[in-house]
Amino acid sequence: MKTILYSGLTANGNYGSSETGQIPKQEELDDLNKRAKEAGNIVMGRKTHEIFNDGEVFEGFDVVVVSTKSILKEAEVVKSPQEALEYLNKRGYDKAFVIGGVTLANAFLSENLIDEMFINIEPYMEEGLKLKSIDGRFQNLKLLGHQEIEKSGIVQLHYKVD
Amino acid sequence: MKTILYSGLTANGNYGSSETGQIPKQEELDDLNKRAKEAGNIVMGRKTHEIFNDGEVFEGFDVVVVSTKSILKEAEVVKSPQEALEYLNKRGYDKAFVIGGVTLANAFLSENLIDEMFINIEPYMEEGLKLKSIDGRFQNLKLLGHQEIEKSGIVQLHYKVD
Repeated sequence: MKTILYSGLTANGNYGSSETGQIPKQEELDDLNKRAKEAGNIVMGRKTHEIFNDGEVFEGFDVVVVSTKSILKEAEVVKSPQEALEYLNKRGYDKAFVIGGVTLANAFLSENLIDEMFINIEPYMEEGLKLKSIDGRFQNLKLLGHQEIEKSGIVQLHYKVD
Repeated sequence: MKTILYSGLTANGNYGSSETGQIPKQEELDDLNKRAKEAGNIVMGRKTHEIFNDGEVFEGFDVVVVSTKSILKEAEVVKSPQEALEYLNKRGYDKAFVIGGVTLANAFLSENLIDEMFINIEPYMEEGLKLKSIDGRFQNLKLLGHQEIEKSGIVQLHYKVD
């Protein structure tokens, strides 16, 4: 199972807060959708699910919500990152596509469960939360590619976790 | 006077600590040198000056060290970002090239003195310090360009502060 993290950071390196009103640009959602399709599934936290749950973004995907509390009809709810991967593995997927938010991203990173990352650097600065390094350690990455997403000003970095 | 910040961040958005032993790659130093030449000067903090002061990196540049304490023969010492800009202005420069470290970068950012930024995203993750947003505010940026520096794995983002 290859686990892919898809995440955004501001140009000054912060994980933008959903409370400052910055919503993802359409180009970024389209890109997310395209890359998620290669996995067939999307793994997210409870809050991210609430924000995006308009029934459209996740259409056609096996949606997995990591939450210790939620009960949902429209998605599989699991209690931990490990349980999400076990569920997807049982369902026959060879990739898991994790989109956050930051709490879930850090849970996956701190347990060293991420094999590949897409980091979208957004063209703005703001204060915010932090994306942790794996297990608090220094971690080398291999740059697989970089591109601007359409003409959005967002530069997407693609890494393999060494 | 156009003030340019040249700075690096880890892939998880931290300002790498000089204490973890990650030294800049030669490709990055060459790039820094090339861009600094367009300004003719380099502005830095005391610690950065200590780290880099091998007499080679700064050769041919008007070197300005922002420090409230230092007395140096080989560089102009000023007490604040504003004073650095005044000094360079008097010397006839139309650009100031600021390379950090993080304390000085944040001093320039918090006083909203930066017009343009080069942010080099390094291909590794680690814990570290933070690059603040300007004045703690949300700040839009315009992406002027992006490129990998040679084959270093470092992706350089180039922004105009809107």
